[in-house]
Amino acid sequence: MRKYIYRLIAKPQPGDRISQWYDWFIMCVAIISIVPMVFRDPSEQVQEVLKIVEVVSVYLLFVDYVLRWITFDFKSNMKSPWAFILYPITPFAIMDMLGILPSVGLIPASFQALRLLRLAKILQYSKSFERIVNVFSKQRKLLVSVLVLAVAYIFISALIMFSYEPAESFPSFFDALYWATTALTTVGYGDIYPLTEVGKIISMISSLFGVAVIAMPASIVTAGFMDELNKDLEEKERLKEKLREAESQLSKERGDGDHE
Amino acid sequence: MRKYIYRLIAKPQPGDRISQWYDWFIMCVAIISIVPMVFRDPSEQVQEVLKIVEVVSVYLLFVDYVLRWITFDFKSNMKSPWAFILYPITPFAIMDMLGILPSVGLIPASFQALRLLRLAKILQYSKSFERIVNVFSKQRKLLVSVLVLAVAYIFISALIMFSYEPAESFPSFFDALYWATTALTTVGYGDIYPLTEVGKIISMISSLFGVAVIAMPASIVTAGFMDELNKDLEEKERLKEKLREAESQLSKERGDGDHE
Amino acid sequence: MRKYIYRLIAKPQPGDRISQWYDWFIMCVAIISIVPMVFRDPSEQVQEVLKIVEVVSVYLLFVDYVLRWITFDFKSNMKSPWAFILYPITPFAIMDMLGILPSVGLIPASFQALRLLRLAKILQYSKSFERIVNVFSKQRKLLVSVLVLAVAYIFISALIMFSYEPAESFPSFFDALYWATTALTTVGYGDIYPLTEVGKIISMISSLFGVAVIAMPASIVTAGFMDELNKDLEEKERLKEKLREAESQLSKERGDGDHE
Amino acid sequence: MRKYIYRLIAKPQPGDRISQWYDWFIMCVAIISIVPMVFRDPSEQVQEVLKIVEVVSVYLLFVDYVLRWITFDFKSNMKSPWAFILYPITPFAIMDMLGILPSVGLIPASFQALRLLRLAKILQYSKSFERIVNVFSKQRKLLVSVLVLAVAYIFISALIMFSYEPAESFPSFFDALYWATTALTTVGYGDIYPLTEVGKIISMISSLFGVAVIAMPASIVTAGFMDELNKDLEEKERLKEKLREAESQLSKERGDGDHE
Repeated sequence: MRKYIYRLIAKPQPGDRISQWYDWFIMCVAIISIVPMVFRDPSEQVQEVLKIVEVVSVYLLFVDYVLRWITFDFKSNMKSPWAFILYPITPFAIMDMLGILPSVGLIPASFQALRLLRLAKILQYSKSFERIVNVFSKQRKLLVSVLVLAVAYIFISALIMFSYEPAESFPSFFDALYWATTALTTVGYGDIYPLTEVGKIISMISSLFGVAVIAMPASIVTAGFMDELNKDLEEKERLKEKLREAESQLSKERGDGDHE
Repeated sequence: MRKYIYRLIAKPQPGDRISQWYDWFIMCVAIISIVPMVFRDPSEQVQEVLKIVEVVSVYLLFVDYVLRWITFDFKSNMKSPWAFILYPITPFAIMDMLGILPSVGLIPASFQALRLLRLAKILQYSKSFERIVNVFSKQRKLLVSVLVLAVAYIFISALIMFSYEPAESFPSFFDALYWATTALTTVGYGDIYPLTEVGKIISMISSLFGVAVIAMPASIVTAGFMDELNKDLEEKERLKEKLREAESQLSKERGDGDHE
Repeated sequence: MRKYIYRLIAKPQPGDRISQWYDWFIMCVAIISIVPMVFRDPSEQVQEVLKIVEVVSVYLLFVDYVLRWITFDFKSNMKSPWAFILYPITPFAIMDMLGILPSVGLIPASFQALRLLRLAKILQYSKSFERIVNVFSKQRKLLVSVLVLAVAYIFISALIMFSYEPAESFPSFFDALYWATTALTTVGYGDIYPLTEVGKIISMISSLFGVAVIAMPASIVTAGFMDELNKDLEEKERLKEKLREAESQLSKERGDGDHE
Repeated sequence: MRKYIYRLIAKPQPGDRISQWYDWFIMCVAIISIVPMVFRDPSEQVQEVLKIVEVVSVYLLFVDYVLRWITFDFKSNMKSPWAFILYPITPFAIMDMLGILPSVGLIPASFQALRLLRLAKILQYSKSFERIVNVFSKQRKLLVSVLVLAVAYIFISALIMFSYEPAESFPSFFDALYWATTALTTVGYGDIYPLTEVGKIISMISSLFGVAVIAMPASIVTAGFMDELNKDLEEKERLKEKLREAESQLSKERGDGDHE
C-alpha cells in the first residue's frame, strides 16, 4: 500500500500514466492555490469563492505533504524511523510546510507571501527546472564571483554618490543603494537621481562601467544554458568525425598494404 | 493559363523577371495599404486620398488572394478539389483574409489592427525572414524553456511585490505585472514603482537577478543567428583543412616509402 | 615638392616622424575646431576667443584640404588631370568640404551640426577606426538584415500601439514611433507611455520580445570585434599545434621503424 | 622579527593559518572603517560610537601601513634603503595613505570619499580580484579601443543633440553629455530628454546604434572572464583526447603488425 503511494507521488517512470497524472494534478493545485493572492479587496461573492479555493487547495497540498512524509523511507533509502523523523527538515518539506502555514493562520499577516513557496511543488516535479538548477550549480563558482563583484560595485557606487549628493536627493544610504541598483541594472525609474553636477558625473561614470559589470551574470547564465543543450549535439558530431577518420585511415592503410 | 499564373505568384525562379516584379509589386501594395493606419483625425482632403489608397490596395490584395486560391493545387501537390477546399484554412490564407476583412466592414472597429496582418505578405515573399524563422524553429526548445522561465520570473516578482506594496502604488495585480515586465526588461518608464522600503528591496533583488533571466532569449536568438551564417564558412574551413591533412599525410607516407 | 607634401599628409611610413606629427597636428586641429560648438550664449570675451579658434582651425583644415587635392594623383594612381577633377567628389573630400562650409557662411544656420564632419579627419588618420570599419563591412550582410528586422519590429509595435491607444497619450504616429524606439531600446525616459490596459499589455509583450530583437546588433558587432582580434592568436595556436603533431608523428614513425 | 611580520602580512602560504587570519582581520577592519560613511546626520549616541569605530579602524590600518613599509625590502627584493624610500610611492601605498588621510583631518571635507580607498585593502588580499584584473589586463587593448569608441559616440551624440535642441531642454553642453550617457547606457531616468521633433529623431537614431556600441565592453569583459575559467578545463580535455588518440593509434599499429 505505502509502496503504491510512493510510486504515485515519485517522479513518474516512463509509461506510468497515473503517476504522471498525479504530478500534473498537484502542479495545478499549487498554481490554483496562488490565485487568491492576485486579488485585492475583492467583492464579497468573489471572496467566498476564493476562500473555498484556498481551503480546498491547501487541504490537498497538506495531503500531498503527508503522503510524501509516510513514504520518505523509500525515497531516502533510510531505515524507517529515521526517515520519518528527518523528513520535516529536508529543504523541500520545509518549503512545503512554509507554503501551507500562512493559510492555517499560524503565521503573522506580513508573511502571507510565503504562500508563494507552494510553487516549489512545480520545481519538485518539473524537468526543465532541473536543467536550470544544473546550469547554475555548474557555473556556481563563476556566478558567485561575478555576483559579489556586481554587489560590491553597487555598494561602492552608492557610497561615492551618497557622500557627494546633498540630503535632498539622497536622504539615506538606503536611497543611494536603491539608486545604484536601478541605475546599474539600467532600469532607471526616474524616482531618484542625482541633482548636483558632481553627482551627475559620478552617475555617468558608474553607469558606463557598471553596464559591463551587471551584464556579466546574464551572459554567464546564458552561455551555461546553451552549453548544456549543445553538448549532446557536439558529442555526437565528434563521435561521427572520429568514426569517419578511423575509416578513412583504415582504407588508406589497406591501400598502403596493396602498394607494398 | 492557371499554370502561368502560378509561376507568376510563386517564389520566382532565378531569372524569372516578371515573377520577381510581381512579388515586389504585391509587397509594395501591402506596405502602402498600411499607410492609412498612420493617420489620426486627418483633414478631409487627406481622408479622401487615404480612402482611395485603402480601396485600391485592398482590392489588389484580394485579387492576389483569389489567384493564390485557384492555383493552390500546383503548390500543395494535392488533387484539385481538395486543394481548393483546404486553401482558406492554411495559415497564410487565414492571415491574408483577416488582413482584408476589416476594410470590408465585416469586423468590429476594435479589430482594425488586424489590417497589420497584410504585412504577412512580406513574410511570404521575403528570403531573410525565412532565415529568421529557421533560427527560431531550430532553437525552439531552448527558447520556449527560457521564455517560460522569464514569464514565471515576472509573475513571481509581481506576486511578491503585490503582497507587500500598499494599494496606493499597486492598485491591481495587473499593475504589479506591468511593473514587473517594465522593470525586468529594464525599460523602467517611471509611471509605476515601489514606494515602501520593502517594495524597493524586492525591486532591487528582482532586478539584479531578473536582468540575467530576461537577457537569455536575446543571447540565444543572436547565437542562433550567427551560427546560421557562420556554419557555411566553418564547413568550408574544415573541408580545406581535412584536404591539407590528407595531402601532407600522403606525401609523408611516400617519403616513408622512399626511406624503406 | 608635391611628392614631399604627399609623404607628409599620407599615412605615415614606420619611422617617418614628421608625417606622424602632421597627422597628430591635424587631428588636434579638427578636435579643437569643434570646441566652439560646446558653448551656448557665451560671454563676449569668450565669444571672441572662440571666433579666433574657429577661424584659425577652419583655415588650417582648408589648407589640409588643398594639400590633399593637389597630391591626389599620387594617392589614386590616376593620371593627373582626372585626379584633380575627381578629388572633390571622393567621400572623404565631400565630408571635409561639408565640415568647412558652415563656418564660411555659405550654409544656413540649421546645418551648423555639419561642422561635426570635421571629425571625419580623425577617421582618415586613425588605425583603430579602420578595424571598426572592417568589422562592420565583414558582418554587413548580417547587420543589415538584423537592423531591418529591428526597424520593422519597432514600426509594427508602434502601429499596433497607435491603433489601440487614445489620442491623449499618443497624439501622432511619430509619438508612437518615438515610444516604440525608447521602449525597445529599454531607455524608457518616461515622457510617453501607454495609459490604457490594452496599451500596457501591448507594451509588455512587445518589450519582452523586443529586447531580444534589439540586442542582436550589439552581439553581432561585438562578436565581430572579438573575432578580428582573436583570429591572429588562434592562427598562431593552430600552427603551433600542427607543428607539434607533425613532430610527434615523426618520432613515432621512427620508433616504429626501430621496432621493425 | 621583521621576517616574521612579513610572513604575517604577505599573501598566506597554504596552511599558514595565522597569516590567513591576519588577512581576514584587516579586510574586516577596512570594511568596518567604511561604515561611518553610511550615516547622514546620526543621533548623538550613534555619532559617538561611529567616532570610536573610525578612530580604532584608522589606527589599525595605519599600523598595517607601517608594517608593510618596514618589510617592503622582502617583498620588492630591493636593497633595504631603496625599498624604504620607494614604498610610499607604490600604487597600493598611495591608495592606503589617501584612505587614511581624510580621517586625520589633513584633507578638505570634499575629499571624504577618499576614505573608500581603504577598500583597496581587499584588492590587496583577495584572489578573485586578481583574476578580474587579469581579465582586464589581457583584453586591455580591445577594451580601451571599445571604450574610446563608446565615449566618442557619446560625445558626438551629445554635440548633435546640443546643436538642435533649444536652451530650455538642454541648457548647457554638460546636460547634453549627461543625457547622452543616460540614454545610451539605456538607464533613461527621465529627468532630461529631447522636446523637439528633431531632437526626438536624433535620440531615436542614436539610441538604436548606441545600444550596440555601449554593449560591447560588457560582452568583451564577460567573454574574457569565461575564457579565463574555461581555459584550464579545455586544456585538460585536449590533453585527454590527445592521449586517447595516441593510445588508439598505438594499438592499431600493433594490430597492423600482427596482420603483417
